[in-house]
Parts: sequence; structure tokens; C-alpha cells
Amino acid sequence: MGNTFGHLFRITTFGESHGGGVGVVIDGCPPLLDITAEEIQFELDRRKPGQSKITTPRRESDICEIISGVFEGKTTGTPIAILVRNKDARSQDYDEMAVKYRPSHADATYDLKYGIRSWQGGGRSSARETIGRVAAGAIAKKILKNIAGVEIIGYVKQIQDIIASVDANIVTLEQVESNIVRCPDQETATKMIERIDQIRRNQDSIGGIVECVARNVPVGLGSPVFDKLEADLAKAVMSLPASKGFEIGSGFSGVVLTGSQHNDEFYYDEAKNLHTYTNYSGGIQGGISNGENIILRTAFKPTATIGKEQRTVTKTGEATTLAAKGRHDPCVLPRAVPMVESMVALVLCDHLLRHHGQCSVLKP
Amino acid sequence: MGNTFGHLFRITTFGESHGGGVGVVIDGCPPLLDITAEEIQFELDRRKPGQSKITTPRRESDICEIISGVFEGKTTGTPIAILVRNKDARSQDYDEMAVKYRPSHADATYDLKYGIRSWQGGGRSSARETIGRVAAGAIAKKILKNIAGVEIIGYVKQIQDIIASVDANIVTLEQVESNIVRCPDQETATKMIERIDQIRRNQDSIGGIVECVARNVPVGLGSPVFDKLEADLAKAVMSLPASKGFEIGSGFSGVVLTGSQHNDEFYYDEAKNLHTYTNYSGGIQGGISNGENIILRTAFKPTATIGKEQRTVTKTGEATTLAAKGRHDPCVLPRAVPMVESMVALVLCDHLLRHHGQCSVLKP
Amino acid sequence: MGNTFGHLFRITTFGESHGGGVGVVIDGCPPLLDITAEEIQFELDRRKPGQSKITTPRRESDICEIISGVFEGKTTGTPIAILVRNKDARSQDYDEMAVKYRPSHADATYDLKYGIRSWQGGGRSSARETIGRVAAGAIAKKILKNIAGVEIIGYVKQIQDIIASVDANIVTLEQVESNIVRCPDQETATKMIERIDQIRRNQDSIGGIVECVARNVPVGLGSPVFDKLEADLAKAVMSLPASKGFEIGSGFSGVVLTGSQHNDEFYYDEAKNLHTYTNYSGGIQGGISNGENIILRTAFKPTATIGKEQRTVTKTGEATTLAAKGRHDPCVLPRAVPMVESMVALVLCDHLLRHHGQCSVLKP
Amino acid sequence: MGNTFGHLFRITTFGESHGGGVGVVIDGCPPLLDITAEEIQFELDRRKPGQSKITTPRRESDICEIISGVFEGKTTGTPIAILVRNKDARSQDYDEMAVKYRPSHADATYDLKYGIRSWQGGGRSSARETIGRVAAGAIAKKILKNIAGVEIIGYVKQIQDIIASVDANIVTLEQVESNIVRCPDQETATKMIERIDQIRRNQDSIGGIVECVARNVPVGLGSPVFDKLEADLAKAVMSLPASKGFEIGSGFSGVVLTGSQHNDEFYYDEAKNLHTYTNYSGGIQGGISNGENIILRTAFKPTATIGKEQRTVTKTGEATTLAAKGRHDPCVLPRAVPMVESMVALVLCDHLLRHHGQCSVLKP
Repeated sequence: MGNTFGHLFRITTFGESHGGGVGVVIDGCPPLLDITAEEIQFELDRRKPGQSKITTPRRESDICEIISGVFEGKTTGTPIAILVRNKDARSQDYDEMAVKYRPSHADATYDLKYGIRSWQGGGRSSARETIGRVAAGAIAKKILKNIAGVEIIGYVKQIQDIIASVDANIVTLEQVESNIVRCPDQETATKMIERIDQIRRNQDSIGGIVECVARNVPVGLGSPVFDKLEADLAKAVMSLPASKGFEIGSGFSGVVLTGSQHNDEFYYDEAKNLHTYTNYSGGIQGGISNGENIILRTAFKPTATIGKEQRTVTKTGEATTLAAKGRHDPCVLPRAVPMVESMVALVLCDHLLRHHGQCSVLKP
Repeated sequence: MGNTFGHLFRITTFGESHGGGVGVVIDGCPPLLDITAEEIQFELDRRKPGQSKITTPRRESDICEIISGVFEGKTTGTPIAILVRNKDARSQDYDEMAVKYRPSHADATYDLKYGIRSWQGGGRSSARETIGRVAAGAIAKKILKNIAGVEIIGYVKQIQDIIASVDANIVTLEQVESNIVRCPDQETATKMIERIDQIRRNQDSIGGIVECVARNVPVGLGSPVFDKLEADLAKAVMSLPASKGFEIGSGFSGVVLTGSQHNDEFYYDEAKNLHTYTNYSGGIQGGISNGENIILRTAFKPTATIGKEQRTVTKTGEATTLAAKGRHDPCVLPRAVPMVESMVALVLCDHLLRHHGQCSVLKP
Repeated sequence: MGNTFGHLFRITTFGESHGGGVGVVIDGCPPLLDITAEEIQFELDRRKPGQSKITTPRRESDICEIISGVFEGKTTGTPIAILVRNKDARSQDYDEMAVKYRPSHADATYDLKYGIRSWQGGGRSSARETIGRVAAGAIAKKILKNIAGVEIIGYVKQIQDIIASVDANIVTLEQVESNIVRCPDQETATKMIERIDQIRRNQDSIGGIVECVARNVPVGLGSPVFDKLEADLAKAVMSLPASKGFEIGSGFSGVVLTGSQHNDEFYYDEAKNLHTYTNYSGGIQGGISNGENIILRTAFKPTATIGKEQRTVTKTGEATTLAAKGRHDPCVLPRAVPMVESMVALVLCDHLLRHHGQCSVLKP
Repeated sequence: MGNTFGHLFRITTFGESHGGGVGVVIDGCPPLLDITAEEIQFELDRRKPGQSKITTPRRESDICEIISGVFEGKTTGTPIAILVRNKDARSQDYDEMAVKYRPSHADATYDLKYGIRSWQGGGRSSARETIGRVAAGAIAKKILKNIAGVEIIGYVKQIQDIIASVDANIVTLEQVESNIVRCPDQETATKMIERIDQIRRNQDSIGGIVECVARNVPVGLGSPVFDKLEADLAKAVMSLPASKGFEIGSGFSGVVLTGSQHNDEFYYDEAKNLHTYTNYSGGIQGGISNGENIILRTAFKPTATIGKEQRTVTKTGEATTLAAKGRHDPCVLPRAVPMVESMVALVLCDHLLRHHGQCSVLKP
């Protein structure tokens, strides 16, 4: 039951790296939304492998097919199923991994939990699974945009120790997409690309931080106490492959401030809308959006699969070593950007519907 | 629907700071567990206000009553309802807050979302809500201990810029409870206590980091892809009041390492159990526990309610200032320790039952 | 996890026949609804024991306390917890049942499932559990009435072989409440009361059928395919103690008709609202309400606990006999009426919020 | 969110009558179950159209493809996606239905709820949706059989007023499959087939009753109070197209008996297993299986789509008539048998895992 996410806007993903394909079923989508396969494909293309020299060279066009739920260009309110077939699967690259566990990968734990795993290309633990999330995220983004003009923009904030300077309040998609590492700070982007390329040649890998902003979020989203907006956002991005940390607003850096420094003082603008002078809260207070920009960061570890030789064990009990073959990303960050955006969109869209369902039905 | 947490071991909390009381309903508890109100009270006493000079002086004995689900000292498998009455509620302290929003508190967002709030003592957004979590956590802890000898120990790792040195692999509950700040590094604890006391006298507040370790966790817990163990842990602690960040294992510090440094190489011990030489993964790989210690950290911001005067607004549209009255913690960290432990226990217990339900039912 | 019902308007009940009490937590209630304990008490009084000579003589005033979620007479959108204390519990009546299983009661199966049960008064399987449902149902009814003028009226349609003649389209609450058996056909009601009284004196019991109508239900409620409105209604009433059958509209009698007889032909009224000439569908087509009256029936078996001696066994393996002591209803029907109404209200209210959340959020 | 069913063993269906296809995602399946597409196909073939002269002549081979979740012939514990493509879709038959609502069909209510519908072949409301249920049911059946030897056998008990005589305790699949109406009472089957054929020639339709027995069900399944086994079974079959009523054990006929007649007295067999002399309870007491055969009945109305001319309206507000074209079943009963069996299997399998997860994890 761990493959379903969301309550009113609810997605279920399926599929493995090798085999028939990967996809998603979206249940609870509002009817009468205009949507095309092209709009979904736009986001899938941002996620797909083989985009550039710093991503995996696996060649997948990742063309999506809308199986159901859309009629004459509009959503019908019934389940939207989207399927992407696997094409460029090279099982032979994985023969060794059938018996040897990649360090820090999911190989061992899947075997320990289930007693079996589809070992080709990581099977279910492959990042190909996120195709379903990104396809669903494309729809969630459109709903949010249509209803409230919400903009969700992610970007690479940090690669290893290289930190970009980005103003989350004004960054644009065009800036993010203007280079292959998806860092809108162009000068820093160049350094990041060089670093990733160097690491790739070393048969090693690196990690970094994706920052994501959601602007124009309606006030009132989030369902305290357990489904606080930041809690659901944390779960959302921490369910992405390779994520190791999450923070909202001031995050870990907020612990060194005092309350009088950290508190976001209130004021009303001329239209009598409530605002805060600062935004250490990251757009969420008490688990509920306050209308300010939602800003969050996710830490991604270095890719587990590397070409360098490492100590490991076989499934059957022997010590051995492994230098992984196959086609892998030296750094997941550039492709993680649309994944983070999608997860943020899924959370906001679900909470938008939940809030509407509970809090606007009674007219006082 | 945001007040229920967990799937098979599922809790629902209720109650506000002022009013009839707070509590929890636990559904899905395994039957035949020996449990007493005293065992639950032990954990509630670690959470209760008025413990020391560095916590809020509100006087609540927080005595719990088991309303249902326990018969002759044993759980019956039916819902366990636990109620704690509110006693020392001083509504008059909150008169000003009925109309003025505390900066960075939930006052404003509750009003924006619901159009109404119980403004006395923060109402539902009060940390008194966590009584239900801690009571349920006491039961989850006992199940985990009885089944697998799981130990869950939280402690204050950092207060503002004061960082403790603690070995998560050997720290004990006794060490944690040996001082009022719940930091097992005694020397650092003294500094932390001084700092909090000083901040309290300044009518200000500070935050910090709680670290928590779960030892002897069975392998196989976690339900990829969305209900990865780290994702559910992230949601769990990010749903606590004042939490701003979460990390597992290496967390944010892991982004500066390379894959060859960060990967946890495998070996078998003499009993042919799988282990890793290092534990950057924090006991979880691919969303599933691998048997190593689970280590996580949560960042808590400085308490929002402070005595210092701040700019804010009234509900009805005017600019004003507020210097909060009432009895509040200058630092939530000492009392957050049992809250974090409880949330970790709830996640692990739920996943233990889920794993058992799915993966041990078929005998191959 | 079986003690929670509903998705957006979600209730969790707790408590046993004997012990601290019984109650409910309602999560997801729309805010700003005017509600008083008196309004809830009105429904609880219709359900309570000791109402008349044909119900159990157990004396419980069943006074409810609203613990949380209501502030200054209005719902706050946060969990509403309602508690009813047990008063007139006579454990001694149940000493024999601690070791002997009542035939067709839940005694044996609770022991078989859980290995333990609170045997006093049936513990969790007691109909006292339905107090929580009826309390929550009172709130659901008010929401439905305020939003759309929905009226939900249940009544006793049949006792054993005595069948009432009732027009569901015009029956009133006053007619239902005008006699102690809750049958609005007064002449038949008299016969029913006589029959129940006679059975009671025989130390035996009887069953019957409750019919329930919901009028003014908005069109569009229900979520195909699994959460069709009739499917959720069926689950709702089949979860009541002693229910053995459910039917909607024509129900079982519809199987002898042909399609051309059974189909409800459409027409538009002068206001261009869609209607059907007949209502064999019972107000639901394709799992979605069509605006006609929803009409359903629930079959209740004769009460399991009877004074007549019957063959049974002890928990420890011996054959024995049992003539039950204690205070029990000779016929559950009169008190089942508010229970059925409540379950219908809970389903409709949940689907109203769900429909609103999904289908009215996008303005085309 | 209404397209997902089950908690631990959880299915989500998707797809419409016309378009890319229909299918299901099964989440939470126990790993290491041997399963082949052929085993699933066996059940789909029982459900498919065009089987005989008394079913719809639509020609669909309904060949299933397992997209994911099965590796080298075994389940992996990850989502199993199964897809069946639509082949013989004749949209032109439905041109008239694009604007005219079929009486008692879902055409009108889908439009009223969603403001749009895929009108070709009924779209989502088509019985083709049940392909996903039957495919998932095939897997659930195998799990139940492997773990406990559970047998689930459905059959046509009644067509219009023609009632079969069947002993649920000994009926076999072979007997059911020995004729095209799936009634194991051969003499009555012949009459039923004649009646259906006659109705078909009249351009009309008829309904009936499917009875289903589950034998060798483990004791202890069911989660009171809301997820009582009979409640979940009721929801399961009432979510099937055209179902109007449900009963368990004695059902509606039990209301005329007294408690002393209806109660199932207990005895222990020689192996000290608990049994009842009679089985009016239908294998479930207090919402929990007691080990006796579970016996239930579902009433299906006559098919809504008929060739006879009927009064109806257009979407745009005019009165009109409709004599439906297209290929439709004159009676859904023969093909409903595997659907009912599948829904029963899904409920039992889910509760088996849930019971195992909650009640066998603690070893006292």
C-alpha cells in the first residue's frame, strides 16, 4: 500500500526499470481540465535520461500514452492512467548485480524485505519510477496554475560545495532551463557542470541540494495536526530516490537565531491582505500556508552506483568487490529538479482540494 | 482528516489547550500487550510542563485515564482511548491574543483557513496536542521492545550554536534523563541550560536540534515508493510544532562527499548477518531498514511566543504591537525529546505491522 | 484500523459497554457550524436504552460531553471529541458469559480473533458503541440540512412478518416519533408493539426491517467505481450490529422485473431539472445521486442474547447451556432507527465534501 | 479517490469502454507468489463478452499483459500492473447516446456530477471496468488458496422468478462452468437460458441473484466496528454494476424468525474446533469470520440498456425517445459470477493480511 500518494488528488505509480514499462494512475482529478499529452511530455523530457553529457547516457525517449481519463482533450474526473514503455533496457549490464549488492543502493534491502527483487536496472527502486510522479505532477501544476496562478520552480542550489546565489522570489523557469545543470546562477552553473563532468570521468559521483519555491499559493492549505503542509512536503520529497534531508524556510540555519530575530512580523498591505516582513517560516505557519512564498530545500546524496571498485557481498554470503557497469548519473541533481517540483505540486494540489472540500462547503 | 496518523497502527488525536482536555484513540494495537497507565504516565511526565526552570511554568499534572481498549491489564485489539484533562488553564492570559496575531505562530493561519479559532492558549495548535502522541508512543515503544528489543532514544544535540558530542550507538536513557535539558553530554548540557535560562530572562527564545537513534530495528521495515521509512519519519517529526528541518544519516552534510566516500560498504558478520562498515545511510536504504541504527535529526526553531515586544496586526485589520503574556517555554527542545521519540516509535510500529502483514503471511 | 469511517468527514469511535465510556472523534468537520450539546443529545435520547417497555431496561442517561472542536458554539474545523460515560454497568450479570459464548453473538469470534475480550456487556461488540455514530450523525445531519435542506428519516418498516404501509416521500419525523416502536403507520405500530412485548415475555427476540429515506439530496454525490454511493451506504448500515441485509430502491424485488418495467424514464420539470417518472433506482444511478429520494432498507436479525436456554460451549472446551441474564432488547429495531439515519447521514456528508472538493474547485 | 479498494491488499482500477484500455494496479501483494498471465486469463475468460448466445456479442479477447510486479514468474511485493487493450470498440453505435440519456444508466449522473463523460460505450461506467477487478481477484484467490485452502464459488441462484436449488456447502466450479448461465442446478439452468434468450429476442432484459460461498475461511477475519467482514463484503459487491441488494446468511428471510430459531448454537468437534449446528450467521459473527462457510447473495437488476423504445431526454433539455443500439447483455448474471467471486476474494485477502499484521505479530 506504499505506492499511493495523496488523499483527494491521489496517485498510484507502478513499473520497474526493465519490463513492460512504468506509469501512474491519477484518481480524483477535477473534471474539465484541458490537458494534452504534449504538456505532460514537456515535464517528462526535463526528467528523461540522456539529456546531456552530465546525465546517464541511457537512451529513453519516454513517450507517454494517456490510456484513460481524458476525453476530447479534457479530464473526465475518472482515473487518468499514463503509461511509458521501457525501450533501451540492457539487462546484460546488470548480470553482476543479480548476485552482488551495490553499496548504499536498495539491492540488499529489497532482497531482505521481499526475498526477491527485479535486479535488472534496480527494478522498482530505479529512478524510472519517478516518471509516474512527474507525469502526474504536470497535471497538478496545471490545476494549481489555472485556479490560483501558482508557480512552482525548482533549481539546483548546491553541488557538493559549490553554492549558487538565487533569489527564489523572482527566479524563472527559463533561467533554470538555460543550462544543463538547472542552476539559474549562470556563473556557478558552469562550475557545477565542470565538477560533475570531472567526477563522472573519475567513475565517482556527487550530490547536492535542490531548492524549490511555490509562489502565489492560496492561504489556508494544510491540515493540522499530522498533515501539516510542511509535513506532507517533507514526506513527498523524502520519498524521492537519494534524498537525505529536508528543510522549510529557515530550516537548520534557523536554530542559531533567537525568537525575536526569527519571528516573521505581520503587516497588512493596501489591499488588506496579510503579509510578513520576513519569511523565515517559508510560507507555512502552524502547518498552514500563509500566502508568502513556500521555500524548501532537499539534500540529495551522491549516486550510489559508481564505476569505482568497492567492497561488498554476494546474495549468497561471500565477500567480494564490485565496480558497477551500466549507465548511471554521476549526479542526480539536474534530473531531480522536475521530480521535486512534481512532488511539491502533488502535495499542494491535494491540499487545495482538501481545503476546498472541508472549508468552503458551508457558506456562513 | 489530518488528525490521524499511521495505517495499521493508527492514532487519532483530539483536544485543545483549553477546554475539556486532550487525548488520543489508538486503533489497530496488537492484542494481549501488557500495559498500564503508569507506563504511559512515565512518558507523559517527560513531556509535561513545569518540569524545571527552563520549561514553561504552567502547572499541569497531565494524569492520563485509559478510557477503553485495555482489559485486566492487557490490550484487547480494540481502540485504546486515552484522555488527559486540562487543569491549569488561564484564559485571561490570552485575551490580547484573541485579537492580535502572534508573529510566526499559528494564530493567523488558523483564522485564515477556518474563519475561527480557539484562541485560548493556542487552541488546537498548542503543543498540548502532543500529549496524545506521547501516550500512543509509549505503547508503540513497548510493542517494538517486546517484539524485537528496539530501543528509541532521543536527546538534545544542539541548542542555538552549542553542540553536544554524543555517540548514538551507545547513549542511554539514563544519560539523557540525568539533566533537565536532556543532553547526555553533561558538560555541554550545563552550557545549554545556562543559555536557555539567560534567554528566558531576556524575554526571548531559542531553538536547536534533537537527534534520535533507533537501535535493533528489524530489517525490512518501510514500504517503497511513497511510504519509504525515511519519508514517513520525515513527515512524523515535521508534523511536530516548531520543527523546520529533518535529516537522516549523513543528511545535509552528505552532499559534500563523493559516492566512493559516502557509500556504506557491506560485510557479513560471523552469524552471516549483513552489515555496513559505515552508516551514512542512517539505517535505511531504498526506503527500507537495513538493520543498522536509524539515526535522524530534527531542527526546531525558537519558540514563537516571546515576551519581547514585536510588530503585528489585529484580526480586524490594524497594525499594533504585542509583548506576549502567558507561560511559555523559552526553548522547546527539552520537552521535544519525548515527542520525537514517540513519532519515531509510531512510524516503526506501524511499519512493523505492515511488513508483517504483507511479507510474512505466505510461507514459501 | 477498522474503527474509522469516512474520508473527508471522518469519524473514529471508541469505548466498550463497561469501563470508562464510549465516544467518537470527528475529523474534517466544516468550520463555523452552529452546534450545541443539546442537538446531539436529542439524537442520543432516541438511541438510549430504557426508553420504553419494549427496549432494554438498562438505565443510562447517556449524557454527552463535547471535549473539543467546538468554540463559543461553533465548530472550529479541528477534531470534535464527544464522550459519554458508562453509568449503569452491572458486571455481575455477565459472569457466566465470561466463560460461555452466547450463540450468534460476537463473544466467540472476538476471542478467536484477539485471544482476549472485554466480556462485560459484550465489550466493544456492544451496541453502546453506536453512541459515537449517532453523536457524529447528529452533526452530519445538521450540515446536510444547512447546505441543501437534506432530510433523513428512518422508520420501522417490518417487525417479523408485520409489515407497515409508509410513503417514504412524505413521512415525517413527528410521525416516526409518535410511538415507541418508531413505525409511522400507527395501526401497524400497535401490532408491532404487542408482538415485541409478547416475545419479550417469552424470553425470546425478533428482528425486522428499517427503511430510510433521504430527501433533497444534491445531485452528483458518490465516487465511482468502488465508492459508489450505494456501496458506501451498504457498508455503512451493514456495519451496524445485527444487520444481515441491505437493499437500495427496488432491491431484491427488482430481480423479477424486466428492464422495460424497471428502468426509470427521464423527464425535465418546468425548472429544467432532471427527474424520473419512477424511482426503482432509489435515487442513485451509476453510483451517483440523481436528485430523487434515496430509499434503502436494512434487515436486522433477532437479538442474539435471549433468556431462553440454548446449547453452547465454554471458552475452555466444554459443552454447556446458557440462559442469558442481563438487560437486553427483545428487538433492536426501535433503537436501530436513529443508528441507520446516522450512518446514512455520515455517508452523505462525507460524499458531499468529497464531491465539493473534486468537482467544484475548477471553474470552467 | 473512489477507484481504490482495500487497505493492505489494495487495488486501483482504470480505463473506459473505449480508448486505450482498462486495467488494474495491485499494491501490497505478498511477495514470492507463483503467478502466470494464464492463471489471470482463466478468470478473465469467464468474464469476457461474446462467450455465448446469452451474453453480449461484442468480440473482445481481453488478453491481459502483466506490465510490472512479477519477476521470473513470482510476485516481487511491488505493484502489479495489468493492462487489457480495447479492441472491438464501435463508437458509431453510441452516437445517439452522446446526446440522449439511457434510462437507469449512468449517462445522466456522470454528466450531472462531472459536467463531462466519455459517452462511448458507457465510458468509465461500462462493465469493462470490472476486468481489473477480476484480474486482481485471480491473484487474491490464489493467495487465499495457498495460505488456507480457501475456495470461493459463485453461481446464478435466480433469474427473474426462476430459482435454482444448490447446496453451497458442496457445489463445485466444474458444476458452475458446465453451462452458459453458470447455474449448477442443470435442470433449472436450462430454463434460465431459455428465459434469457427469449428476453433477448424481445429487446428487453432481466435480472437475478448471484449466490457465493467461501469455504475454509480462516477464523478471525474482519475488523470491527466499521470494517466488519460483512460490511466490507456488502460494499464490495454493491460496487458492481447493476447490483441492488446484498444479504449474508439468513439475510432478509431471517427477520421472520425468533432468536431461539435463528441463533446458531455452538459445539466443539473432535479436534476441539468450534462449530455451529446451523449457519444462519453465514460464517460471520460480530463482524468476524467464525470458520463456517461464508454465504452471501447479491441482487442484480435487469440491464438498463435495452432495444425497446423508452421515454428519455437529451442532454440539452428536450424530451425524446431512445431504442438503444449497440451490443449489450440481456442479463448480466452469467458474467457477474466471476465478478462477485473476485470482490469476495479481494475482501478476504485484504482482511487476511490485516489480521495477520495486527494479531499475529505479538507472540504472547
